Amino acid sequence: MINIGIVGGTGYTGVELLRFLVQHPKVNIQTITSRSEAGMDVSELFTNLRGHINLKFSNPADAKLDTCDLVFFATPNGIAMQETEALLNAGVKVIDLAADFRIKDIAEWEKWYGMQHACPNLVAEAVYGLPEINREKIKTARLIANPGCYPTAVQLGFLPLIEAGIIDTDHLIADVKSGVSGAGRKAAVHTLHAEASDNFKAYGVPGHRHLPEIKQGLSNIAGKPVGLTFVPHLVPMNRGIHATLYAKLTKKINLQALYEKRYVDETFVDILPSGMHPETRSVRGSNICRIAIHQPQEGDTAVILSVTDNLVKGAAGQAIQNMNLMLNLPETMGIDQVPLLP
Amino acid sequence: MINIGIVGGTGYTGVELLRFLVQHPKVNIQTITSRSEAGMDVSELFTNLRGHINLKFSNPADAKLDTCDLVFFATPNGIAMQETEALLNAGVKVIDLAADFRIKDIAEWEKWYGMQHACPNLVAEAVYGLPEINREKIKTARLIANPGCYPTAVQLGFLPLIEAGIIDTDHLIADVKSGVSGAGRKAAVHTLHAEASDNFKAYGVPGHRHLPEIKQGLSNIAGKPVGLTFVPHLVPMNRGIHATLYAKLTKKINLQALYEKRYVDETFVDILPSGMHPETRSVRGSNICRIAIHQPQEGDTAVILSVTDNLVKGAAGQAIQNMNLMLNLPETMGIDQVPLLP
Amino acid sequence: MINIGIVGGTGYTGVELLRFLVQHPKVNIQTITSRSEAGMDVSELFTNLRGHINLKFSNPADAKLDTCDLVFFATPNGIAMQETEALLNAGVKVIDLAADFRIKDIAEWEKWYGMQHACPNLVAEAVYGLPEINREKIKTARLIANPGCYPTAVQLGFLPLIEAGIIDTDHLIADVKSGVSGAGRKAAVHTLHAEASDNFKAYGVPGHRHLPEIKQGLSNIAGKPVGLTFVPHLVPMNRGIHATLYAKLTKKINLQALYEKRYVDETFVDILPSGMHPETRSVRGSNICRIAIHQPQEGDTAVILSVTDNLVKGAAGQAIQNMNLMLNLPETMGIDQVPLLP
Amino acid sequence: MINIGIVGGTGYTGVELLRFLVQHPKVNIQTITSRSEAGMDVSELFTNLRGHINLKFSNPADAKLDTCDLVFFATPNGIAMQETEALLNAGVKVIDLAADFRIKDIAEWEKWYGMQHACPNLVAEAVYGLPEINREKIKTARLIANPGCYPTAVQLGFLPLIEAGIIDTDHLIADVKSGVSGAGRKAAVHTLHAEASDNFKAYGVPGHRHLPEIKQGLSNIAGKPVGLTFVPHLVPMNRGIHATLYAKLTKKINLQALYEKRYVDETFVDILPSGMHPETRSVRGSNICRIAIHQPQEGDTAVILSVTDNLVKGAAGQAIQNMNLMLNLPETMGIDQVPLLP
Repeated sequence: MINIGIVGGTGYTGVELLRFLVQHPKVNIQTITSRSEAGMDVSELFTNLRGHINLKFSNPADAKLDTCDLVFFATPNGIAMQETEALLNAGVKVIDLAADFRIKDIAEWEKWYGMQHACPNLVAEAVYGLPEINREKIKTARLIANPGCYPTAVQLGFLPLIEAGIIDTDHLIADVKSGVSGAGRKAAVHTLHAEASDNFKAYGVPGHRHLPEIKQGLSNIAGKPVGLTFVPHLVPMNRGIHATLYAKLTKKINLQALYEKRYVDETFVDILPSGMHPETRSVRGSNICRIAIHQPQEGDTAVILSVTDNLVKGAAGQAIQNMNLMLNLPETMGIDQVPLLP
Repeated sequence: MINIGIVGGTGYTGVELLRFLVQHPKVNIQTITSRSEAGMDVSELFTNLRGHINLKFSNPADAKLDTCDLVFFATPNGIAMQETEALLNAGVKVIDLAADFRIKDIAEWEKWYGMQHACPNLVAEAVYGLPEINREKIKTARLIANPGCYPTAVQLGFLPLIEAGIIDTDHLIADVKSGVSGAGRKAAVHTLHAEASDNFKAYGVPGHRHLPEIKQGLSNIAGKPVGLTFVPHLVPMNRGIHATLYAKLTKKINLQALYEKRYVDETFVDILPSGMHPETRSVRGSNICRIAIHQPQEGDTAVILSVTDNLVKGAAGQAIQNMNLMLNLPETMGIDQVPLLP
Repeated sequence: MINIGIVGGTGYTGVELLRFLVQHPKVNIQTITSRSEAGMDVSELFTNLRGHINLKFSNPADAKLDTCDLVFFATPNGIAMQETEALLNAGVKVIDLAADFRIKDIAEWEKWYGMQHACPNLVAEAVYGLPEINREKIKTARLIANPGCYPTAVQLGFLPLIEAGIIDTDHLIADVKSGVSGAGRKAAVHTLHAEASDNFKAYGVPGHRHLPEIKQGLSNIAGKPVGLTFVPHLVPMNRGIHATLYAKLTKKINLQALYEKRYVDETFVDILPSGMHPETRSVRGSNICRIAIHQPQEGDTAVILSVTDNLVKGAAGQAIQNMNLMLNLPETMGIDQVPLLP
Repeated sequence: MINIGIVGGTGYTGVELLRFLVQHPKVNIQTITSRSEAGMDVSELFTNLRGHINLKFSNPADAKLDTCDLVFFATPNGIAMQETEALLNAGVKVIDLAADFRIKDIAEWEKWYGMQHACPNLVAEAVYGLPEINREKIKTARLIANPGCYPTAVQLGFLPLIEAGIIDTDHLIADVKSGVSGAGRKAAVHTLHAEASDNFKAYGVPGHRHLPEIKQGLSNIAGKPVGLTFVPHLVPMNRGIHATLYAKLTKKINLQALYEKRYVDETFVDILPSGMHPETRSVRGSNICRIAIHQPQEGDTAVILSVTDNLVKGAAGQAIQNMNLMLNLPETMGIDQVPLLP
């Protein structure tokens, strides 16, 4: 059995990691830390886990993370970068679900995240954990920067168009909508039920932290800087991301065939038949990214619809997919549940 | 007092017309028809109206609509076009909340709505009831084609940019999101709570009936055909439309000032201060269209956010605004309520 | 015009007071205070009020509340009791929407609210602001304890049964459900959208602060102590309270007639026809308490269904109803809007 | 492998059966019928099943159900009673998820369900499929009447109190709340999102079809007829039942210990520690019934809180639990998933 540690297990990515890991046949959850809830039964905080886990939150100081085989950081930004080096030196593999290692340009990272980076050298080493792009590098990595929720849905959606070189990459538009769990499980006014429910709004239009992450990823694919307008919105639902992507076509090609071919071997990317529209609930609780391709009125604008569960393929599920790759386990092990509908 | 008739009062636009009209100081609701509910107290079907209305649904055949001063059609598409001519001949003004008179090109209308038009001659006469564009024509009209919900939010959002001639009108993008009441109050599977709630999806991407209506309106403003990609989405909320509009700027200009100037005299269009994001709940139950203007990273893409209540400014409220204009009453009479938040 | 002050205007009862007061024909909002938001435009925080109010939140120290005719406290518990005496001495009438003056038994209050009472003498003077019971006393009061949201729905539901002396008052059961806005507009985890939505739970079963308030009210009606089991639940909706009340009948009587007679003169209590079920949305945004009476299978258990909008008849609307009575204005002035449905 | 047939697979219990069965290690889904959708891929209707099932809906006439080992009826009431006899004669076991075989008193059934029963003789044979009561009988049964959703939550909640003989069974009260999926996946107005969302109401207070089923079950336990007031409510959420149960205690006893002892060997009944409140989301997607016991203010009223997922322990999950018992498989096989939270 692989011994796993989770740092910061009281948020939604934490409980979601646990939901998958308690059912994973090759994993033993050795420790889960929480500064605020140390000593509390995990299943008292997350009653859905009653009967599935018998563990208390431990104080980070007592957690002996260096005796784990692999550690997940499900912490706020800025924590993993302080603790990762010691773990790597102790031979522990690390997957960071926060943003500490996602942006290669340190200055850019520091601008968007408003703090000084604690270990720029590890940023260079860290592998961006999007298996559909970086599978081979992930298999041998010590340190994974697990992608953000928006970036996963947007990159998987644009990827085939950019690789094929058939769109104007200077004017990409990503109109993206997220459920409220994307804001995390922390006391706040703007994500209260009475604020977010029966309501819809855009936010962060002048600039959102996932913008540089997406641009970095798409630029890598394009082999040159891309131009992107990224507009996130808040949807009154718990889980789910729906990316509506617009690109101007520069060549005529069968888009449906392009996408089906690109993702034919990808278990976790599902291309819908022509004419369909994916819905977020069709991936609820699952690691699937479901995509549909449209070209309205046969014009020169491609419209790509890409949905994920922000807590799964957008966070915990993808982290375990990366773990499986790093540990040479079957890539789908423990994360092949059927989505819950309705 | 003005005597009003409502044809087809059992849907959401019907109850919304009633909510405003029972509080309107110059109006008497003379009759409201429903084939299916004839004889039932209106307030039994819509219990929110108990104590505010003392009227039964009447059979259309007995309704004596030709004795009204003005008749609203809150019916499915294809009804008003059969009954309007007789009413006009009897001197009754007509406002159609359905789509029968919205599209000037009869062939285009017949293609999208799948039926033969019953009175093409009246289509030519009908005035498109968007007061911010057609106020003077509305005042003297006998017949109003009340705009669709999506078209209202999209046209008011794009209007100043197109009038100013500062964008590429060949590649407009309208990514629009609507609450479920937009689908009407009729038995259906896809709008059940258990289907639509905790879910988000696009629909009608290959083509939606509001596309030709919006293109007609924007082309009129532009003085030439525009190119538009229109993608509607279903939001798990009751009321509200949020249009996220994208246009490529061809000239540098102060967009905030442009919008504030264009709408300075419009009571029902509110331009937010720079940097803000409108939310649909901020117009819940009101006739306001609230707009914010963004230009992310000072690039060449304008992002306009435009919200309305689909049942009010997108339907019943705008219809009463038109009625007030036609009857020479103050434009805001009866429709100046404060939005309900939360 | 009556000059009004509001203390603590950044919560849901605050914005709801404003929604009604900006439309009230006899009222001038002189000042609204907020320690945290002093200097901010009210309509920046509550964008639904844009165009309806032109006032900034003022610092309590600068608010000159003693120059108002009447002051509403929309503050957390424990604030009004510190400031009311000075206002009364200055000739200002006071309505407290919190709980400071609701419980006559000071020791009981201190037990449930966990603090020492600052002015027990005013508790004795304060009139409990449930007009359907205390109308005449309210008219001449200087100080009103505005009832809690649960207590309003429960008391109006049980009232006729207890007055008529036809039930076992030792075993009353109030199974009550509230929308999330009842928890207020403050940062918290358990009322986040992702925690409260798509979920249902009871809370506070061992004891809730509204229990002693309801028992006091029902005991006053009964003329002896009553026994009450009170179980509150959290509903994933914004507004609304639904009380399902159970009582064992000790006499045979026409319950429908009893309720209709008791409330025949009450504008804000609506008794539904026999066999119907009230829904919370039928009173959304309005000051109505809507009640239905059932006696399943003609057994000896009465089931009373009582719905209100917790922010209106359960808070701000009732407060204005009390204000109207205190100022000798028509009782319905400014609070007779039609509920918003859907 | 066991060959399974499903009759009527286009509703929510159908898709939920599929969700579990495609993951069940001992089961082969041989056929699934739908008159209306015959020929359509199952995964086209239920896109969450894409990649997990490769089967089309078949016409009932062509389904060869008599070659299955076991058939589930996920049909409207009145279908299973017409087809079961032939299947049993062919040696096929049957589990009916509808109500055809639940009520032993045929006249009572016909009164509540408004039709004549087609095979009263099988009603006598059918075993009521609540394993916590009837486990041994289920193991040898040919025909299972799978309990209703409300009856499961209510009976498991009251069971220990009645067995222990410590309550007044003449005045039981079950105040029960259900998510909207309980109404099924059929076109209807009252369960539209715009009707059911942001709303709460009771329904069926004069009488609901689950009343006789619950009374039959509780009377069997009590060994005498019980008196029950049953009030169902509709909650704006997709899944979940919350039963709040009230009983007058006639003896003093440690209720917490009573429940823990009664259910100590029941995998699918979880008794919460004293003082806690179960929430429906803590069992979302799972076969658990989670119960908490309260005795407010140490009075003589017991308050039992019992939650289930109406589609799982209240329908499809319990059906598979019954199937496992009938087939001598481990009782939890295929239905031990972790609930999805949030």
